[in-house]
Amino acid sequence: MAHESEAAAEEDALEEARDEGYDLDRKAVARILYAVDTDDREQLVALMEPLHPADIADLLEQVNAYDRMRLVRLYGHEMDGDILSELDEALREEVIGILTPQVLAEAIRELDSDDVVDLIEDLDAPQQEAILDALPESERAAVEQSLAYPEFSAGRLMQREVVMAPEHWSVGEAIDFLRSSKSLPEQFYHIVLVDPRLRPVGNVTLGRLMSSKRDVTLKSIQEESFHTIPVAQYEGEVAYAFNQYHLISAPVVDENDRLVGQITIDDAMAVLDEENEEDILRLAGVDGESRLSDKVVDTVKRRIPWLAVNLVTAVMASLVIAQFEAAIAEVVALAVLMPIVASMGGNAGTQSLTVAVRALATKDLTGSNLWRVIRREGAVGLINGVAFAVIMGIVGIIWFGSPALGGVIASAMVINLVIAGLAGIIIPVVLEKVGVDPALASGAFVTTVTDVVGFFAFLGLAVVVLL
Amino acid sequence: MAHESEAAAEEDALEEARDEGYDLDRKAVARILYAVDTDDREQLVALMEPLHPADIADLLEQVNAYDRMRLVRLYGHEMDGDILSELDEALREEVIGILTPQVLAEAIRELDSDDVVDLIEDLDAPQQEAILDALPESERAAVEQSLAYPEFSAGRLMQREVVMAPEHWSVGEAIDFLRSSKSLPEQFYHIVLVDPRLRPVGNVTLGRLMSSKRDVTLKSIQEESFHTIPVAQYEGEVAYAFNQYHLISAPVVDENDRLVGQITIDDAMAVLDEENEEDILRLAGVDGESRLSDKVVDTVKRRIPWLAVNLVTAVMASLVIAQFEAAIAEVVALAVLMPIVASMGGNAGTQSLTVAVRALATKDLTGSNLWRVIRREGAVGLINGVAFAVIMGIVGIIWFGSPALGGVIASAMVINLVIAGLAGIIIPVVLEKVGVDPALASGAFVTTVTDVVGFFAFLGLAVVVLL
Repeated sequence: MAHESEAAAEEDALEEARDEGYDLDRKAVARILYAVDTDDREQLVALMEPLHPADIADLLEQVNAYDRMRLVRLYGHEMDGDILSELDEALREEVIGILTPQVLAEAIRELDSDDVVDLIEDLDAPQQEAILDALPESERAAVEQSLAYPEFSAGRLMQREVVMAPEHWSVGEAIDFLRSSKSLPEQFYHIVLVDPRLRPVGNVTLGRLMSSKRDVTLKSIQEESFHTIPVAQYEGEVAYAFNQYHLISAPVVDENDRLVGQITIDDAMAVLDEENEEDILRLAGVDGESRLSDKVVDTVKRRIPWLAVNLVTAVMASLVIAQFEAAIAEVVALAVLMPIVASMGGNAGTQSLTVAVRALATKDLTGSNLWRVIRREGAVGLINGVAFAVIMGIVGIIWFGSPALGGVIASAMVINLVIAGLAGIIIPVVLEKVGVDPALASGAFVTTVTDVVGFFAFLGLAVVVLL
Repeated sequence: MAHESEAAAEEDALEEARDEGYDLDRKAVARILYAVDTDDREQLVALMEPLHPADIADLLEQVNAYDRMRLVRLYGHEMDGDILSELDEALREEVIGILTPQVLAEAIRELDSDDVVDLIEDLDAPQQEAILDALPESERAAVEQSLAYPEFSAGRLMQREVVMAPEHWSVGEAIDFLRSSKSLPEQFYHIVLVDPRLRPVGNVTLGRLMSSKRDVTLKSIQEESFHTIPVAQYEGEVAYAFNQYHLISAPVVDENDRLVGQITIDDAMAVLDEENEEDILRLAGVDGESRLSDKVVDTVKRRIPWLAVNLVTAVMASLVIAQFEAAIAEVVALAVLMPIVASMGGNAGTQSLTVAVRALATKDLTGSNLWRVIRREGAVGLINGVAFAVIMGIVGIIWFGSPALGGVIASAMVINLVIAGLAGIIIPVVLEKVGVDPALASGAFVTTVTDVVGFFAFLGLAVVVLL
């Protein structure tokens, strides 16, 4: 009976995990936590067994710290290295801290060396040591060698195992070599052709190899487009190359163009996803590493810097308003309408800067089209400015019965939307030129400009026209 | 001599295209445009030859419409299908319109059927017809069949060519089958194991196949983790599955679980990148399809809707201010300080909503952790609120010499930052529940809340405390 209900539970969990695309089902999670509550190890293992390590990692991220600790302890030596690999960096230290040394050693030994590197590069020194100590000597050397490359470089991303063949070989020779090889990597998709000095000169896909005659040379069936990755290249550039050139795997070369490893598209995809994630968070003024599983204190730390910058810019805008206190005291309607001009400018500027920041990230904005794009943003700002000037002019007249006030807000709107469009493109480009990440800093600069210009144009014109 | 300088030009272009990562070099572009200006076809072809189709597409996106037309015409039948595939959708119609029917037919015939589908799905009917007519009958049927699947579904993304084998085969049988096959796809990485009813039951990597003994069964070397993709699944879910489960290729099945095609990771990577791009643009209030190569009129159209929504919310905030005209007339300092409270709330709300929207997109925010995350956002808002309340209270006292005014702005700051944190998480979750894309609409709702609450709390408290 017990066994039957376990099997049923397992099937349910599997089905529910697949319900609605790939969401973790709330009921399945509740059942797992119930097994933890009742200390029912057998049931827990049965419920977790059908889950992919990536889904188990998600589960660990979604429960609270206390449940996480009890779950990890109860799961014990079922905890494998892949789960640790999939965990958010913020949680790895915590979970690794819960594991007993034996369980940790067992989990680590299953991993490929590039996964071990990825796992330990952000841990603190004692945890790193503990993991390195658990590795066999040869793998430990490989991991330490990878760690010697700079963070976020191709060297950290690559795996060292590559299948290569001399460029003059025939298909038959290559197949015989593969068939007699003792230790091929589990996952490989290409044979890298190398010259006598071990410099990669081409790629042959396994599919193409299998469908070619034995006497054909590898050289004649190599892929048309071939890219090597310098070992020091920034991982974001690596991901860009994979996406731009549709690479599946690419050989990595040292400064002498000699083959030192290879990167496969799944790792590049993960990097591309992270880079996009960081851009999204940075554009919103949040630290790029922010995750939902962060603790309150970390979240506060990640958000306060940007809020502090915003406070300074908001005070600057207030200083502009303060110059016009007399005018506001006389015509209070100015205080009512002024936020509208600033807000529209801020929004238009954000639209323009976001498109610019993305175009810079995807290399679609270059010296060749910069001036054209600036002219376009100016024109778009002018057209949108005129459109909303007409609307707000009419609103101003109806609301406050003053054509002059309508004219003032309309004019300020045109000015601010043109400035917003131009600032939205020029500021990110200048930031990138001086080496500051435009995703991080553009927002603060652009909204400062649109706030200051918005208030100044509206209140300044009001003083000239109305008083 | 002429030949030598061409070769040199070619090498230069290649080197420059690789300078600084993968940027298109401005000088190389200038040289290409000079060849167009001087009608020098030979030189143009020599300069373009080393460029990858994706880079040529980028080049076409970056030059102006007039240069683009002349370049495409001069390049003539060198223009291949891959360049068209890589082009931004906004430009495809334009470029296809420039090509002569013969050049177009030639370019299209080189493409795989899934690339043809991707190329034509957004074209208008006459251009679609022209391209379909250029295809051989069998391929035309394949393309039309793919187009019968809904847009953005796995069916549109998949290729029909799959290499499969009965699950009971041995490694030897599979290798002999592959070696004797007449028409294997150019790119394939797995053999899909199928049962007698053509339902996929497992995946064997080519690498694993090559490194296994002839008498081993395919079943025993299949990959541990195996996922099939329903043909109707939304492409965003497909991309999620590839990224989550590190898939390289996955079989696509119909509603009877029968194999109908396969999707490879490079296509999934492109979808993931597009989805992220759309989220980034939508969060900034820009249509997700916005590209730098859009014309002015299209850009205006893509940005006006959001600005119009913002105008409505800004007017709502102004209506709140209008309720306090008498108070502002009495204490003008209120008009000076009130934008600070609203602006801080807007920023804090944007931080919170961006993290929430991303967590929803990556399925990290679920029923299991929703309440914990809401509590966390409330706590973060409270802590940040108190921190900035202290600062602004002091600023208010120093600036305007009024402890009461300092107390009012401090209290309003705490209230607005707590509300901002809560609104930033609750609004996206509710929008997703009712089926609205949270990336698209959260910003407008959250900033309306923070503006209205900010002005109301600050001015309302001022009336109570100061007047």
